[in-house]
Amino acid sequence: MPFVYSTRVRFVDTDASGRIHYTAMLRHFEAAEQDFLRMIEAFYKTGYLAGVGFPRVHAECDYTGMVAFDDPLDIEVRVERVGNSSYTLGFAASVEGRPVAHGKLTIVSIDLGTQRPRAIPEELAGKLRAYQASSSTEAALPA
Amino acid sequence: MPFVYSTRVRFVDTDASGRIHYTAMLRHFEAAEQDFLRMIEAFYKTGYLAGVGFPRVHAECDYTGMVAFDDPLDIEVRVERVGNSSYTLGFAASVEGRPVAHGKLTIVSIDLGTQRPRAIPEELAGKLRAYQASSSTEAALPA
Amino acid sequence: MPFVYSTRVRFVDTDASGRIHYTAMLRHFEAAEQDFLRMIEAFYKTGYLAGVGFPRVHAECDYTGMVAFDDPLDIEVRVERVGNSSYTLGFAASVEGRPVAHGKLTIVSIDLGTQRPRAIPEELAGKLRAYQASSSTEAALPA
Amino acid sequence: MPFVYSTRVRFVDTDASGRIHYTAMLRHFEAAEQDFLRMIEAFYKTGYLAGVGFPRVHAECDYTGMVAFDDPLDIEVRVERVGNSSYTLGFAASVEGRPVAHGKLTIVSIDLGTQRPRAIPEELAGKLRAYQASSSTEAALPA
Repeated sequence: MPFVYSTRVRFVDTDASGRIHYTAMLRHFEAAEQDFLRMIEAFYKTGYLAGVGFPRVHAECDYTGMVAFDDPLDIEVRVERVGNSSYTLGFAASVEGRPVAHGKLTIVSIDLGTQRPRAIPEELAGKLRAYQASSSTEAALPA
Repeated sequence: MPFVYSTRVRFVDTDASGRIHYTAMLRHFEAAEQDFLRMIEAFYKTGYLAGVGFPRVHAECDYTGMVAFDDPLDIEVRVERVGNSSYTLGFAASVEGRPVAHGKLTIVSIDLGTQRPRAIPEELAGKLRAYQASSSTEAALPA
Repeated sequence: MPFVYSTRVRFVDTDASGRIHYTAMLRHFEAAEQDFLRMIEAFYKTGYLAGVGFPRVHAECDYTGMVAFDDPLDIEVRVERVGNSSYTLGFAASVEGRPVAHGKLTIVSIDLGTQRPRAIPEELAGKLRAYQASSSTEAALPA
Repeated sequence: MPFVYSTRVRFVDTDASGRIHYTAMLRHFEAAEQDFLRMIEAFYKTGYLAGVGFPRVHAECDYTGMVAFDDPLDIEVRVERVGNSSYTLGFAASVEGRPVAHGKLTIVSIDLGTQRPRAIPEELAGKLRAYQASSSTEAALPA
């Protein structure tokens, strides 16, 4: 079963078009990522303080459906790839079962001292791979 | 029993000081307000679409304690005042019982056609007053 | 000569990593887009009110360099593609000549009544194409 | 002559009401503060890195006029008070001469090691007082 983060579209998320602003979806993806990492016990916060940073090197999102104020938003999190020093998460957002957006974030593990890429801490990499393996390959993200 | 909205401090909420950015607290207050209005069945969303708007005319916040990434944030919502065309909500934020911020929002009811203040829709005013009356006067917000 | 929007990295743009938060770069891209459209006299604001909306259907960004608080940020805007009902803008951000990010936004023209795609208003399409033609093909965005 | 920061209301600043979201005004106040501190050569960035932090302990704002997408926004910055360990800045925002918002920020100087208040660095305090003295007392902020 994939991890799903559920929230509501907030008023600050909307813009004068009456829809959600496109950057607000990325804020919700980030909240989903944070709670996902807690769920797999990745100890993200602790890891961060211990000298490893996780800057994003790539972000992308396709917006496929209307999203309005107060809509209930469900965001499914997938582990798409776990490399040596970076990993990619996938996000699929829906409103009451209707797909509205899907995107990806590529995150690199860096040494906060040198600011250079380093291997993903083994504990984190292991937990990401375990989650990836346990997720159904059939229920893939929208192409 | 007062309404309490619970969330987590998100990474986007933080700034280079390592603490929460002061505007992020106001975003969380707004989410608390939105869920509070749903809880009292104020039908804020519907009301909005029916020609009444609710712009904020005053906002203030005191920041009394440190708030860091991933901290669990509880925000208690109070109805401080219900006037003819405006009302004031109070918010008290805490992290694991430790007060970290409290603030107020004054919201005016306007006619979206004329953009002029109008009486708060009676159904909304009634529900705000009922909540105000039912809340304990003893457990007041921090002075 | 390409259009360049210049600003500073604001404190609210940073996060607890001490760097810019990745969504903040997209806010700056949007400000660049807005001033670019004014520069080419696209009458975006007026057009919007006249029944045409411009939601984003795709956004992406690569983050290639560190960006810190108060850094001077220059964002070059390119017209990458002008289709029938959508167009793609490219953005290249640099700090004192050092590339730090580049991205793309695909924007679709919709009829606000039907919420369906429609042809880009001819005046806007013409101005986008004129700018695209006048921009040097040599100074392309980073691959 | 007071310092005035000029910008535009961005699309991300708006919400589904069609107006500016109230937290967006505070982001613009912060940009005004940042450029003001550079103008008086307060070396905020350097000072920050040297072990002094400047968290906000109080923020407030009154919203007195409509502000829409793309409006030109002028924000005047005042030094309202310079105490021992904290100071208060005032902000007055207008659109083409029409007042739309005014607010205050109280900022405390803390030792980043102990996280306790400390005297405002003398160089900063002196520059704030000099600016305060040079500003006209007649052209006060709206009451």
